[in-house]
Amino acid sequence: AVCLSTTAMAKSKYEYVRHFELDDRCLPNSWIVVRIDGKGFHRFTNEHSFEKPNDAPALELMTRAARDVVDLFRPDLVLAYGQSDEYSFVFRRQTTVYRRRASKLMSQVVSQFSSSYVFHWPSVMGARALRQPPTFDGRVVLYPTDRNLRDYLSWRQADCHINNPLQHGLLGAGQPRRSHQRSGTAEERLRHTLAADKNEILFSEFGINYNDEPALYRKGTVIVRSLETPGEQDSKLSSDTGAPDGSTVPASEGARTDQKPVGVVKVLNCDIIGDEFWNEHSSVLSGNNKKAK
Amino acid sequence: AVCLSTTAMAKSKYEYVRHFELDDRCLPNSWIVVRIDGKGFHRFTNEHSFEKPNDAPALELMTRAARDVVDLFRPDLVLAYGQSDEYSFVFRRQTTVYRRRASKLMSQVVSQFSSSYVFHWPSVMGARALRQPPTFDGRVVLYPTDRNLRDYLSWRQADCHINNPLQHGLLGAGQPRRSHQRSGTAEERLRHTLAADKNEILFSEFGINYNDEPALYRKGTVIVRSLETPGEQDSKLSSDTGAPDGSTVPASEGARTDQKPVGVVKVLNCDIIGDEFWNEHSSVLSGNNKKAK
Amino acid sequence: AVCLSTTAMAKSKYEYVRHFELDDRCLPNSWIVVRIDGKGFHRFTNEHSFEKPNDAPALELMTRAARDVVDLFRPDLVLAYGQSDEYSFVFRRQTTVYRRRASKLMSQVVSQFSSSYVFHWPSVMGARALRQPPTFDGRVVLYPTDRNLRDYLSWRQADCHINNPLQHGLLGAGQPRRSHQRSGTAEERLRHTLAADKNEILFSEFGINYNDEPALYRKGTVIVRSLETPGEQDSKLSSDTGAPDGSTVPASEGARTDQKPVGVVKVLNCDIIGDEFWNEHSSVLSGNNKKAK
Amino acid sequence: AVCLSTTAMAKSKYEYVRHFELDDRCLPNSWIVVRIDGKGFHRFTNEHSFEKPNDAPALELMTRAARDVVDLFRPDLVLAYGQSDEYSFVFRRQTTVYRRRASKLMSQVVSQFSSSYVFHWPSVMGARALRQPPTFDGRVVLYPTDRNLRDYLSWRQADCHINNPLQHGLLGAGQPRRSHQRSGTAEERLRHTLAADKNEILFSEFGINYNDEPALYRKGTVIVRSLETPGEQDSKLSSDTGAPDGSTVPASEGARTDQKPVGVVKVLNCDIIGDEFWNEHSSVLSGNNKKAK
Repeated sequence: AVCLSTTAMAKSKYEYVRHFELDDRCLPNSWIVVRIDGKGFHRFTNEHSFEKPNDAPALELMTRAARDVVDLFRPDLVLAYGQSDEYSFVFRRQTTVYRRRASKLMSQVVSQFSSSYVFHWPSVMGARALRQPPTFDGRVVLYPTDRNLRDYLSWRQADCHINNPLQHGLLGAGQPRRSHQRSGTAEERLRHTLAADKNEILFSEFGINYNDEPALYRKGTVIVRSLETPGEQDSKLSSDTGAPDGSTVPASEGARTDQKPVGVVKVLNCDIIGDEFWNEHSSVLSGNNKKAK
Repeated sequence: AVCLSTTAMAKSKYEYVRHFELDDRCLPNSWIVVRIDGKGFHRFTNEHSFEKPNDAPALELMTRAARDVVDLFRPDLVLAYGQSDEYSFVFRRQTTVYRRRASKLMSQVVSQFSSSYVFHWPSVMGARALRQPPTFDGRVVLYPTDRNLRDYLSWRQADCHINNPLQHGLLGAGQPRRSHQRSGTAEERLRHTLAADKNEILFSEFGINYNDEPALYRKGTVIVRSLETPGEQDSKLSSDTGAPDGSTVPASEGARTDQKPVGVVKVLNCDIIGDEFWNEHSSVLSGNNKKAK
Repeated sequence: AVCLSTTAMAKSKYEYVRHFELDDRCLPNSWIVVRIDGKGFHRFTNEHSFEKPNDAPALELMTRAARDVVDLFRPDLVLAYGQSDEYSFVFRRQTTVYRRRASKLMSQVVSQFSSSYVFHWPSVMGARALRQPPTFDGRVVLYPTDRNLRDYLSWRQADCHINNPLQHGLLGAGQPRRSHQRSGTAEERLRHTLAADKNEILFSEFGINYNDEPALYRKGTVIVRSLETPGEQDSKLSSDTGAPDGSTVPASEGARTDQKPVGVVKVLNCDIIGDEFWNEHSSVLSGNNKKAK
Repeated sequence: AVCLSTTAMAKSKYEYVRHFELDDRCLPNSWIVVRIDGKGFHRFTNEHSFEKPNDAPALELMTRAARDVVDLFRPDLVLAYGQSDEYSFVFRRQTTVYRRRASKLMSQVVSQFSSSYVFHWPSVMGARALRQPPTFDGRVVLYPTDRNLRDYLSWRQADCHINNPLQHGLLGAGQPRRSHQRSGTAEERLRHTLAADKNEILFSEFGINYNDEPALYRKGTVIVRSLETPGEQDSKLSSDTGAPDGSTVPASEGARTDQKPVGVVKVLNCDIIGDEFWNEHSSVLSGNNKKAK
């Protein structure tokens, strides 16, 4: 017989290796943001015939995956913002989930997002078959103040604004979508063109009225859990969303439903740079979300 | 028209938030191990009717997902070891991939594993439908010496030895599989039982001859890329594997195939605690794998 | 002749070891606090016959050393607070000195403090000879918000309040000063005594009217650089200080004087828990100190 | 009376700020090197009329200070190497002193070095008065293997070789000593001159026979604690040292002497790039030093 007692002793002999794992706890009372990004998505979108520059079902799929991440970490994950092939997840500054260990938070976010992306693919993408499993990368960044957090989110949303006309107007419809490459030269070119205030010319030339584009494309997607009474809010927000085609993704179904109360989860395509959004969802910054526990 | 020039300026105004991302480069010349673990897999395995204590297709699926991770990081990822709902991935100590940034390595490993797990589910699990996307967590641990790395892997394999008879003999066939919970009391009970050298009695009582169990269950799975000429090796290893039922998982097909040479990737169910494996795959520790670049 | 060309080549051969030094930059926009503490000061104070529980020249020496640290890092170091054998140094949250690298800031603070402590000993301690060089340890802690920073400083000042009567009343005049040991039991005993509201009895018993003690002992020492016009401030602060004996340490003389403007450096023995100090020195938190550059 | 109970309560109210201090434990089983460097020593050496390029008492003072650091951390600090205005301190790879916390080790090294430098100044520097307290900075670097550690020390010693003739020959006797600035151009010039194998010409031109210089200047200083029997060793090492003038610094006197056994501490000016030193002091790398505990 195998000498299991030897094995058990051996195991305890090796157990010292546990101590090589170091603590990576995040600084308390700072906003924890986990951002995931598609890796090699230029190739991935070509292989799967994504419409350029925006493929509505593909964006919806991103949001379906993000919804599962938000559910996984409720009520600690208070906001998510996505555009193109990226999504940012914001944990409330007081969270103590997993002792704020960066690797725990980051790995589960990126894992859930990835498995949910593949899981929901058939129901969202329809006839298009998934040919290979995608890869996302992730990172954790801390923001000490509310202002820093808002500026981070503004940065990502401004990136969305810039990438969209860039893809429409400058690269043209037949060209590959490159937002994930952030090509410095093209962005530079747009910036200088605009600096001379020629953006009307630009769009008239390409026959696109940017403001008629769906808010989903222009603003990206915000997922927010709030404690405000739904009645008051929704009326205001429907105009805010500006999504005539109802681009708001329906609430996740079939996802895990345990007992934690979640507040009201909303999926919006609204501006998050100005103050309006933050006034209407004041609990996000005030930390009242923790009452949802 | 939307004032895009304002947006572009706004973006650059917000760009300072980039600097909040800190460097998390791993110490050079140390082994980088990324371990992923199923989260909440007790429930997950029940919901999907996994056979206890070992479900062969479920273990094969883990290895299919791990193969994709190994492919993604070739030739820098030189070995992977898995058992139960966990897998450890070893990057060669000299790797400079992604500047050795811990978050890059860890996030892509856990992302690829998760999306591949869901992607390969239908072909491996057959009729059993995936009811919800699984979550894995991940961590990065560094080991400064070859001895430390081998002890780490021995620790994981000894854990496999211990969990298996534990599940067979002590918990019984009808009981839930708990390896991921590492219940201290049950492990303790086994250890003490064995300390009195009663393991023969234990197994005769439960009617199981542990050594007749497939190597897949007793040893877990090793994925190794080596430069040794296949002819010499395979003959030796087939006996090493000790897998009469050919439990070795077939090479991944349909996965991405770019141009990088990969050496020979082998999937084994052999002992990695003793010296034999390491003598036969000396390139893993010697770092000759980098020649595969 | 020595083959220097070989040496030069050798040096470049070894230079790879530079890359083992990792970046330890502090999170931007957070308060950086470096606290130094005397190591083994129970023994050190006995060997040098420090008066218990407070030795005025010894406290003055601490502040002389702290002044040099403040000078070294002007204008980035905006406040220092000391009591007993410890001193905390606060860098403004926007500082970019040494790229905010923790080891650079911490090592230079503790080095300057230590060398200045020995350097100024003769002029401050008079006839008492320094028998051995003291050791201090140091640490870096970040605080994301103004509130967190103020709470940190309040914590240190409350510690001063508690340690003083503890040393006076409970330990007695003949007993060694133990503040650096933070003996849990004695603190506990005081806390419970007070909880029964017996503090008047306590002090009458020991014949000490705590409020007649110098502010230096009760409040510790604050070093602050401010931009307020000195005329307005000093009148207010003299009463704030409550130091009839003028225990305020005179401005450092003979220290390095390069060209950087420093604002007005003040040494106070006032309360920093309440709002008054912070209102009068609003530039500390508002960051206007950077204008002093 | 002051309400001390309120203060005690207040203290516990603020105590949450403790949790902002994060763990900075060093990776186990790797060599911990703390290097200290004089800050602004170009100016400091000028103000104190240091002889250029080497001031023997100033180098002796560095070693006196280093001796105190070695004593402070015995037996965990197994080797120190110094040259010019820098010193490197090597903790044995298995050390658990202060739980291997980087800030504890680094701050105490740099504090002890700084205070000892000032403390020993009068006895070593004689008539020259210390005009201002010096500042040193510090850093912690980990090396996973013995080879990496030896290469680090070789790098520092090769730097010493290069800086010395550089200061002698190229910069000339009347010029300021610049080793701490590591001026790229001058080093480059020497390297290229040597590459053309003109070093004999170089030195004959300047009238200096580099090999006649004291080993102290050419090799720097090694402080090593070893367990080898002194009798066997010293005979060998005296030739190794190559110091006809007995430049070896005498053992520190008057420093703290507690009960820990220390092995034999030696101060040498020998080569540490080749194997001879390491063979003769094999306990440094083998870790037998821990028996000295």
